[in-house]
Amino acid sequence: MTNTCRVIIIGGGFAGLEAAKALSRAPVEITLLDRQNHHCFQPLLYQVATAALTPADVAWPIRGILSGQQNARVLMANVEGIDTKRRRVRTGGGTFPYDQLIIATGATHAYFGHDEWAPHAPGLKRIEDATEIRRRILLAFERAELEDDAERRQALTTFVVVGGGPTGVEMAGAIADMAHDALPRDFRNVDPTRARVLLVEAGPRPLAAFPEPLSQYARRALERRGVEVLTGETVTSIGPETVSIGDRSIRAGAIVWAAGVAASAAADWLGADRDRAGRVKVSPDLTVPGLPEILVVGDTAAVTDENGKPVPGIAPAAKQMGRYAASVIAARVMGQPLPGPFRYRHQGDLATIGRKAAVVRLRRLTLKGSLGWAFWGVAHVYFLIGLRNRIAVAFSWLWDYVTFGRRSRLITQPANAHPAEAEAEPAGSSGQPSAATPAENAGITPQAGRVWG
Amino acid sequence: MTNTCRVIIIGGGFAGLEAAKALSRAPVEITLLDRQNHHCFQPLLYQVATAALTPADVAWPIRGILSGQQNARVLMANVEGIDTKRRRVRTGGGTFPYDQLIIATGATHAYFGHDEWAPHAPGLKRIEDATEIRRRILLAFERAELEDDAERRQALTTFVVVGGGPTGVEMAGAIADMAHDALPRDFRNVDPTRARVLLVEAGPRPLAAFPEPLSQYARRALERRGVEVLTGETVTSIGPETVSIGDRSIRAGAIVWAAGVAASAAADWLGADRDRAGRVKVSPDLTVPGLPEILVVGDTAAVTDENGKPVPGIAPAAKQMGRYAASVIAARVMGQPLPGPFRYRHQGDLATIGRKAAVVRLRRLTLKGSLGWAFWGVAHVYFLIGLRNRIAVAFSWLWDYVTFGRRSRLITQPANAHPAEAEAEPAGSSGQPSAATPAENAGITPQAGRVWG
Repeated sequence: MTNTCRVIIIGGGFAGLEAAKALSRAPVEITLLDRQNHHCFQPLLYQVATAALTPADVAWPIRGILSGQQNARVLMANVEGIDTKRRRVRTGGGTFPYDQLIIATGATHAYFGHDEWAPHAPGLKRIEDATEIRRRILLAFERAELEDDAERRQALTTFVVVGGGPTGVEMAGAIADMAHDALPRDFRNVDPTRARVLLVEAGPRPLAAFPEPLSQYARRALERRGVEVLTGETVTSIGPETVSIGDRSIRAGAIVWAAGVAASAAADWLGADRDRAGRVKVSPDLTVPGLPEILVVGDTAAVTDENGKPVPGIAPAAKQMGRYAASVIAARVMGQPLPGPFRYRHQGDLATIGRKAAVVRLRRLTLKGSLGWAFWGVAHVYFLIGLRNRIAVAFSWLWDYVTFGRRSRLITQPANAHPAEAEAEPAGSSGQPSAATPAENAGITPQAGRVWG
Repeated sequence: MTNTCRVIIIGGGFAGLEAAKALSRAPVEITLLDRQNHHCFQPLLYQVATAALTPADVAWPIRGILSGQQNARVLMANVEGIDTKRRRVRTGGGTFPYDQLIIATGATHAYFGHDEWAPHAPGLKRIEDATEIRRRILLAFERAELEDDAERRQALTTFVVVGGGPTGVEMAGAIADMAHDALPRDFRNVDPTRARVLLVEAGPRPLAAFPEPLSQYARRALERRGVEVLTGETVTSIGPETVSIGDRSIRAGAIVWAAGVAASAAADWLGADRDRAGRVKVSPDLTVPGLPEILVVGDTAAVTDENGKPVPGIAPAAKQMGRYAASVIAARVMGQPLPGPFRYRHQGDLATIGRKAAVVRLRRLTLKGSLGWAFWGVAHVYFLIGLRNRIAVAFSWLWDYVTFGRRSRLITQPANAHPAEAEAEPAGSSGQPSAATPAENAGITPQAGRVWG
């Protein structure tokens, strides 16, 4: 009976989710494993980090996305290893046998051998990263408001973004927009419009993937917002609220890492060949050499396009690989001819700098400025999951566009149920005030109800 | 020059915020201190804990609320003590002198001398409490889905709410609604509709503040949703995922504490007389005996109404005290006659059980069922701060009403910037999967832009 082909997909990101959906009509039993309970629309994570969107706007429970797909189950489990001989995936929640395995575990931040920089310069991969960066940026302004010394105030309101790719450009632009548009009227002692934002890129120009003119436009648009774009400069060390660029040392209130990524541990699990970024070297059909029942997709796979250029670590590439892997498995299960080798179709590049400024390069089309910005916004709303989030995000963007506001400027500490523990400083919250209890007790005492007025 | 009267308000909750607003036209310099950067609309926190609303729906940056008030500044600082002789407030962010001081530091959970219960049964006071409770409830279902043993599955999907006041009733009803409405179609191995929800109340009936009939209705409405309402039963001990009620021991996937509160440390700061709940015993004009320049308001103050009944710890009472304290200070500063003693006007009681079920008792009006529920919803939307959140919350409620959905079902871990640390189990996340990296890397690599498709 064909319905017993067990397909395990590890990772509920763009690649894994796409693979699961593409197998919805195949006679297989899909188990999707992820350590998180939610899929994160990572391209908009920088907007959570800069208080424009709230986590629920860009994340959905994976099991909610696949709830209608009867041949799929979703398990929140932490993969510990893969027994390729006995075809089992070992997790913290049990061991699961597979007939076909898709590995889509993505990538994480890479600090070029300087992992000690990580606590001082978080990257932007998970919801938790975004809320932590948001906390650090907002807290820097709060501390500056309390600071009498003008120099320390300037240091606290200095923000350094390392890496001039789309994420770095978007973060730098968004921090500058927030400082100029949303914050000024809220502060008395510090002038947020005087905040410094530095974007450090080792290469000759930001957005290196884009044509020269768009890259130049991006630089000008950033500089128009007061962002200092440092190109051809390398970060030599990162410490607590300090970044060394070349031989200069810069004090900063928050530092964001957007300079690079490395693949997940998949190569270790498989004992497979990997490239320098740790990505599994796969065959042209995305299978692991010697392990045809295992396909590796998304940022975990080292794949090149027809020109031998590495496939970029972007959502469309991940989705294409996910769909391809599904088609291979479907063909195998149904005894149909296998598809040809995976071919990546690059649809274009998109990056936003900030309010009314973005760069778009599709096959024929090139856009920038307000038009590019509008296209960027529409495209992102379109690719969000679910009508509800499309409405919520579109509403947020329109509201903020009109009001210059930022909705979710919340400084929240790590979840902590114990009042006593709550007194303690949460990790990395240097200077975080934390003892006085806010007066927020309404109707929690058993002896009373509540009414408003 | 009269404009130099320095008023310090400690606490940006309902009482402190109301006091600050009521002084907007007075010739004073207001400094509002809070350890948090946001005001939390605590009455709707249970909806964040049950994934109906997202934190940004019920919290606002305090400085945003007061940005237009030129005589007020907001500082995020942790109060460490008060020098009543030299009239200074000591904080982690510096020492601030005052001429008039309003203390509105609220209350925190009280475990009746069993603080060791706190880590196992979080209360619901701060945004962080709500997201932690949300994490525990959702994680319990995730763990149950992985569980083969039916008995352990039942234990994991058992939820105990301690305390039958409005918060307890609302939590129990909301958990039951979520289990019955939002979750079933998402799970394969566990049946969320078979989740057990226990509400434990030491008194004879839930919602003791309400008239008997409404209280009976609330019990029936809870039981109709499958909530087991245990009255006249005391919790004798709470351990990891275990609650002892009388001599029975019950295994639970999550435990919520809604049984009582104690005032903040204000009495210690002042060395003032306090009642058993730790509230400062104030004079009829809310000043501290012997310290007329210090007023204590909200849940930090022990105040009785004209019948000698203690004023309940609810938002309207806090707001009334805040306004009164402001009027006293304004009168002093402008040399006008002082107002009479504070008189609490109880406007009524409101509590919601869940979908289409709430109880409302105003002076003449008594409502229950759908009508009460509609009134409750309109009242709460009305009292939210800002048009934007009113629209956002109303939209969320209408959407969920139609779709039976729950938007923000996110299990998020404590903020953690370090990939290595991210491998570690966060505090209290028993059984939390955490190593495999989700495939969420889109366009973060410097060498690529992004487009959707």
